[in-house]
Amino acid sequence: MVSAKHISYTPGELRILDQTKLPAAVEFLTLRTWPDVAGAIAQLRVRGAPAIGIAAAYGIAIEAHNLAGQQLSNAAFFEGLERAGQSLSAARPTAVNLGWAVKRMLAAAQPPVLAGAAQGTIAASLDTEARAIHEEDIAACRRIGDHGAALFPGPVRVLTHCNTGDLATGGYGTALGIVRSLWKAGKLQHVYVDETRPVLQGARLTVWELQQDQIPYTLIADSMAAHFMQRKTIDAVVVGADRIASNGDTANKIGTYGLAVLAKAHGIPFVVAAPRSTFDPSLTSGAAIVIEERNPDELRTFGAARSAPPDATVANPAFDVTPAEYIGAIVTETGTLKPPFETSIAQMISGPTYAETAP
Amino acid sequence: MVSAKHISYTPGELRILDQTKLPAAVEFLTLRTWPDVAGAIAQLRVRGAPAIGIAAAYGIAIEAHNLAGQQLSNAAFFEGLERAGQSLSAARPTAVNLGWAVKRMLAAAQPPVLAGAAQGTIAASLDTEARAIHEEDIAACRRIGDHGAALFPGPVRVLTHCNTGDLATGGYGTALGIVRSLWKAGKLQHVYVDETRPVLQGARLTVWELQQDQIPYTLIADSMAAHFMQRKTIDAVVVGADRIASNGDTANKIGTYGLAVLAKAHGIPFVVAAPRSTFDPSLTSGAAIVIEERNPDELRTFGAARSAPPDATVANPAFDVTPAEYIGAIVTETGTLKPPFETSIAQMISGPTYAETAP
Repeated sequence: MVSAKHISYTPGELRILDQTKLPAAVEFLTLRTWPDVAGAIAQLRVRGAPAIGIAAAYGIAIEAHNLAGQQLSNAAFFEGLERAGQSLSAARPTAVNLGWAVKRMLAAAQPPVLAGAAQGTIAASLDTEARAIHEEDIAACRRIGDHGAALFPGPVRVLTHCNTGDLATGGYGTALGIVRSLWKAGKLQHVYVDETRPVLQGARLTVWELQQDQIPYTLIADSMAAHFMQRKTIDAVVVGADRIASNGDTANKIGTYGLAVLAKAHGIPFVVAAPRSTFDPSLTSGAAIVIEERNPDELRTFGAARSAPPDATVANPAFDVTPAEYIGAIVTETGTLKPPFETSIAQMISGPTYAETAP
Repeated sequence: MVSAKHISYTPGELRILDQTKLPAAVEFLTLRTWPDVAGAIAQLRVRGAPAIGIAAAYGIAIEAHNLAGQQLSNAAFFEGLERAGQSLSAARPTAVNLGWAVKRMLAAAQPPVLAGAAQGTIAASLDTEARAIHEEDIAACRRIGDHGAALFPGPVRVLTHCNTGDLATGGYGTALGIVRSLWKAGKLQHVYVDETRPVLQGARLTVWELQQDQIPYTLIADSMAAHFMQRKTIDAVVVGADRIASNGDTANKIGTYGLAVLAKAHGIPFVVAAPRSTFDPSLTSGAAIVIEERNPDELRTFGAARSAPPDATVANPAFDVTPAEYIGAIVTETGTLKPPFETSIAQMISGPTYAETAP
């Protein structure tokens, strides 16, 4: 069930679709060390909160294989895994899924889980754990899609931002999973896709996915969303998330907060879609979420073309934080959370995981 | 006093800075026929509501010289001017300044103003009229700048959208004129510049102007404005206008309406800056303003770079309409208009022009 399309794994080797090349070219990269994986994450060759968690998990498994081949002491083996985990967790700061996946992988490697096992056996066991993270994410996305679609009687015209589809997840997608489930249920009238400057994940990736699924969409510049809300051609805004605090404050791709304010001003429901792995119960609010500041050249250039003077002074925060008060619902794989989010998130976190309840 | 920098004229010949080439190259075009001028306007080689009015005015003068050289009857001469005027007015639909300038030029050419004059004399007289339109616009911009700067006690951090500077006007600018006057008065702390997709007038043109004047600025993606408002680093939003209805509803570059909604939600003043020539008293509200839909390739590509699949379905409205209720003040050359705009605009329109009151 693991999608072969954009993330696939054989022991010690992760193959990913290079998302920086889309839509012009479909090129795959083979990653054989954890620095390869961390580099691919930092350079956005694989991106999207759930997808980078999955990639990091495979990165740990890869490192286990590499370390197991070096005839190290068990202490040195686990130290090596720990070091790789720290670096993979730090490849990007905002999405919590990275740290979540690394922690889960390291826990699966540590005694007493595999007390006394050979290093090669531990590496094989980490392959299994990483595949489980990947498969559970796909299953979670399908559940998110179906829970989210149930929110709308249809026909509905949805605006989405960035890319939250196959490419951003193990497969199917979070917000775009809702779009896919709405489409399958015959309730989707249209999708408006923000191009999502500066990296254009909407224009390059979401459009590419929607074209393949033949879902009717219109690409717009980010600044056009308000105009179409004013013209009453958008019924709902559906976005993903990179980190959700315990009060529901949500970090997501830069531009999300503005859409939330605009949606509220126009009386349009604003829905966040994210798996449980995107919640960070250690944070009481979004104020503590670290916002990644990316390379200013992302705004000074546009592919090979220059979009501003080469020495232009630029701010380039990659994310913003939408306060919970703007969010109507957070759709997870175990159900749809409604305000007050302090309560509904706490219940979800303390309740069974999808894997625990799945048939 | 006519700026030689980006629009200059000798009889029969208009020289413009090609704004599509900025900031990579400073290239000038020489336009010797009205279709040259209309083409340059349609292709955004010269853009900005006041600037295209000025270019169209020179286009009429050029046509007068060309017609005067053809030994036509006076009737054919005036018909030719009329035809050029119609086409120039239609080069872009949203900015009213085009039609306003063409009407003023044609009125200056018609009997009884120049009853019995030789066609060459009429052409020379139209040179004078076009230069007057150009010079009055620069003077109006300086007045707008000073009236606008008086609104702020300073130090103020301003967000602006698109390009409303030297390049968009005869010179100095409307919203950017306010920025310039604030800077000269020592009251400007910082300017945030929206890059303004899809044509990037902010990134390419406004940054270029601010760099030349050494005014401190930060370039941001359009979708970042809300984030910086949330972080309380923006004290006011100042924008230009392409057409203002008699109730104050304002058409301006796409993205303006969204900024107005965001400014209101954050308690930030929203100020429009425009000369009298941008008002259209024939419209009772913004609902009747025609919104130009531009080529979808503006969103599919940027320069030589592809930003979306070549067959992506795109919407590309070049303007939006901000309802008057979001606007705190409209700064004109004859003073600052406050709500209720029905009253203040009517008083301004029936009052003396700046030229009539200028010393």
